[in-house]
Amino acid sequence: MQEDIITKLLNRRTIRQYSDKQISDDMLNTIIEAGIRASNCGNMQIYSIIITKDKSRKQELAKFHFNQPMVEQASVVLTVCADVNRFEKWCLNRNAEPCYSNFLWLNVGTVDATVASQAMCVAAEAMGLGICYLGTVTYMAKQIADFLNLPKGVVPVTTITIGYPSENPPLTERLPMKAVVHNETYKDYSQADIEDIYGEFEQLETSKQYVKENDQENLAQVFTNCRYKKEDNLAFGQSYLEFIKEQGFF
Amino acid sequence: MQEDIITKLLNRRTIRQYSDKQISDDMLNTIIEAGIRASNCGNMQIYSIIITKDKSRKQELAKFHFNQPMVEQASVVLTVCADVNRFEKWCLNRNAEPCYSNFLWLNVGTVDATVASQAMCVAAEAMGLGICYLGTVTYMAKQIADFLNLPKGVVPVTTITIGYPSENPPLTERLPMKAVVHNETYKDYSQADIEDIYGEFEQLETSKQYVKENDQENLAQVFTNCRYKKEDNLAFGQSYLEFIKEQGFF
Repeated sequence: MQEDIITKLLNRRTIRQYSDKQISDDMLNTIIEAGIRASNCGNMQIYSIIITKDKSRKQELAKFHFNQPMVEQASVVLTVCADVNRFEKWCLNRNAEPCYSNFLWLNVGTVDATVASQAMCVAAEAMGLGICYLGTVTYMAKQIADFLNLPKGVVPVTTITIGYPSENPPLTERLPMKAVVHNETYKDYSQADIEDIYGEFEQLETSKQYVKENDQENLAQVFTNCRYKKEDNLAFGQSYLEFIKEQGFF
Repeated sequence: MQEDIITKLLNRRTIRQYSDKQISDDMLNTIIEAGIRASNCGNMQIYSIIITKDKSRKQELAKFHFNQPMVEQASVVLTVCADVNRFEKWCLNRNAEPCYSNFLWLNVGTVDATVASQAMCVAAEAMGLGICYLGTVTYMAKQIADFLNLPKGVVPVTTITIGYPSENPPLTERLPMKAVVHNETYKDYSQADIEDIYGEFEQLETSKQYVKENDQENLAQVFTNCRYKKEDNLAFGQSYLEFIKEQGFF
């Protein structure tokens, strides 16, 4: 049994194309239960999960995710939020003075929402479903919050699309384990280390193809000049920060 | 097989007491591989995992975690960090101008480090090991960063202790699923909703005991007056924010 779980974890693929088959309510409930059962700070459960299943609402939501087709195609879209609103309302009803709308608890909520998200993803994949995380939720956080009617104290952290797979992609390359693991203390990377870590990655046919398609000199430039550009990083970071402040944090 | 994974996810317990038995290197490597195989933004892997196994270093590290006994007792302690340092070094070596030391990518790194963390936890639990998350890593982030030798661009996000369980705690209560799930739009909580959601929780014998032990009027006050107090929340939030800025973000 143990082997099976490990084998699944080591061989999972992100799935971006889904069939029309819908996820049953029972399955979705079990997936969410798995998320709720994961660890969380102080058992305060300062997260909320917003389900988007309605076809026309998925179409609307897709616009805020730069029309990535997963949003419309997926059977279920989950927007997972850091949420101190519920907990603070409970405190206020109990003559207890809450103080969780601040940077520390935004961070706790972000971590706890993500822990729940990943537990849901493992559960979904165990059922033979495919998942994809969408980081775009932070780029358009304010618009998505309006669309989902999020009150103060609630901030979208990540979005997960879930559906029956209609593709079977190859396993994605990762950096060698030594690249991301440090024993006892962080050993900073020399130029030789960087060559060693990234060299194989850069030599992959898929990487070379990617560089060519984007008309860049190398793979790193595809990231800095095309995929995640300075002006976008700064603008989206600024808008997310402003939105978080509007939601009452900081 | 699917049932077994789901059953495990729905019945997991956080484990805070560990036996002396040590985790083998093979097991630890497999756990970390499972973390690396989980989703991450743009396959940039902007996280690092610092392993603390050395007995005397675990003792030292425990101090920064308010001497929680899990740190010393656990076979392995993993400090999981958001890390743009490695990626930016690669870019700089490739004549590509990186711009990832900012709020957006701190957030991406936090989410990705947490996704990897939770995948590692599921793998560890599948092997019969027990895990505990330690949020205290953000309270003492600067001290822990010094201890682990973290350079600029690297911020601890969460800490996980892993070991063979020497306790078998009961399943922890959670709020009913309806408390954290919203269909299509967020339905804000009325006073009646709050009573409905938290009522059962407050009536548990463990909750009543907890209130009594802490000499408070009710469970909410145990949180606001004892466990996560205003002055601590603000001070730890402030110190984490300052540390993050020192590490080059914002």
